[in-house]
Amino acid sequence: MTTLYGYWRSSAAYRLRIALNIKGVGYDQVSVNLKEGEQNGEAWRAIQPQGLVPVLEHNGQQFLQSPAILEWIDETWPEPALLPADAAGRAKVRAWTSVIACDIHPVQNLRILKAVAAEGGTGFEGMKAWAQRWITSGLESLETLVAAQDRETPFLHADRAGMAEVYLVPQLYNARRWGADLTNCPTLVAADEAARALPAFAEADPAVQPDAEPEG
Amino acid sequence: MTTLYGYWRSSAAYRLRIALNIKGVGYDQVSVNLKEGEQNGEAWRAIQPQGLVPVLEHNGQQFLQSPAILEWIDETWPEPALLPADAAGRAKVRAWTSVIACDIHPVQNLRILKAVAAEGGTGFEGMKAWAQRWITSGLESLETLVAAQDRETPFLHADRAGMAEVYLVPQLYNARRWGADLTNCPTLVAADEAARALPAFAEADPAVQPDAEPEG
Repeated sequence: MTTLYGYWRSSAAYRLRIALNIKGVGYDQVSVNLKEGEQNGEAWRAIQPQGLVPVLEHNGQQFLQSPAILEWIDETWPEPALLPADAAGRAKVRAWTSVIACDIHPVQNLRILKAVAAEGGTGFEGMKAWAQRWITSGLESLETLVAAQDRETPFLHADRAGMAEVYLVPQLYNARRWGADLTNCPTLVAADEAARALPAFAEADPAVQPDAEPEG
Repeated sequence: MTTLYGYWRSSAAYRLRIALNIKGVGYDQVSVNLKEGEQNGEAWRAIQPQGLVPVLEHNGQQFLQSPAILEWIDETWPEPALLPADAAGRAKVRAWTSVIACDIHPVQNLRILKAVAAEGGTGFEGMKAWAQRWITSGLESLETLVAAQDRETPFLHADRAGMAEVYLVPQLYNARRWGADLTNCPTLVAADEAARALPAFAEADPAVQPDAEPEG
């Protein structure tokens, strides 16, 4: 029995939906309504003291932090593998995912955007400019890294979507949401498009989740 | 032949020094002078397009992003293991390290502090307040997570220092540097003190690196 506590628009929850779909693992979803501040309530903080989603529950055990959960998913259900079979390949893919997980996503997370806007008194436009700035500069660095590699398919590593796309697709969802410029990221955009055409990714799309609301 | 490109005060480089010391791997150090902006020069960006340290070079191959490099180190030199032997244990420790690597460190990184201070026009005091805020709140969440576990030693997982301390000690170095309040983090402070008493950690201390300058 596997339950994903998340939110349709949370890009960290989106990563887990993709990974579970790739593995063919069925799961229930419980929505933590970030829009209404449910993540800051006592009930949720007893589960996740940071007040963040997602949390994955499996056979009564709770797992926190999407980077840790993704490694656990890949170890628990080895096929098809999300990470490359060789150590150097894993180091390369994990470097790419770290750029997103450490240097882009946390800096454009809503709690940081709100704090930055409060700091500068810049409101929604300040949030948007900050998000665009760090998403674009981070993705342009990632583009440089991935473009240095030879590839025969649009996918970032090897001939199929794996851990790199598990992180990339939700980050490009955020990029589009904030209107970040992706002109200089053709390799990333092509990998994102190819991955989103796959059922595992399409079924994880925020817009088709049970708790999705009309975009606006 | 192993070379660490870093900087004495970079806490991500500090993580790698500790890990290599624990494994007993000898390495040369090349300093990238962050204070003088060397990380933004063309020469360094050809190696690391984000303009970040550290980079680890081993037998001619270059590895980026400390979370990826730490996994690679643990795979390449398995003994003594940095991560627990069981999948659930690994998931737990990786969740703790993700709190630091994703939710604390990137938000209090110097490039973000400078950008936040510029946004608010708040100068050094603004940087300090921001760093204190996110370091303390992040570490207090981590304290809640680690305190929920039974332990017989001061170390966070099992009876010796491992991956959790590899991330914790550099983060507490940053916490002290910015004067962040650690009153509510007794478990973390005890683990940090016990780890820093070990040679692998003591020899990785920023103050004793070849490129260290007097603190001030």
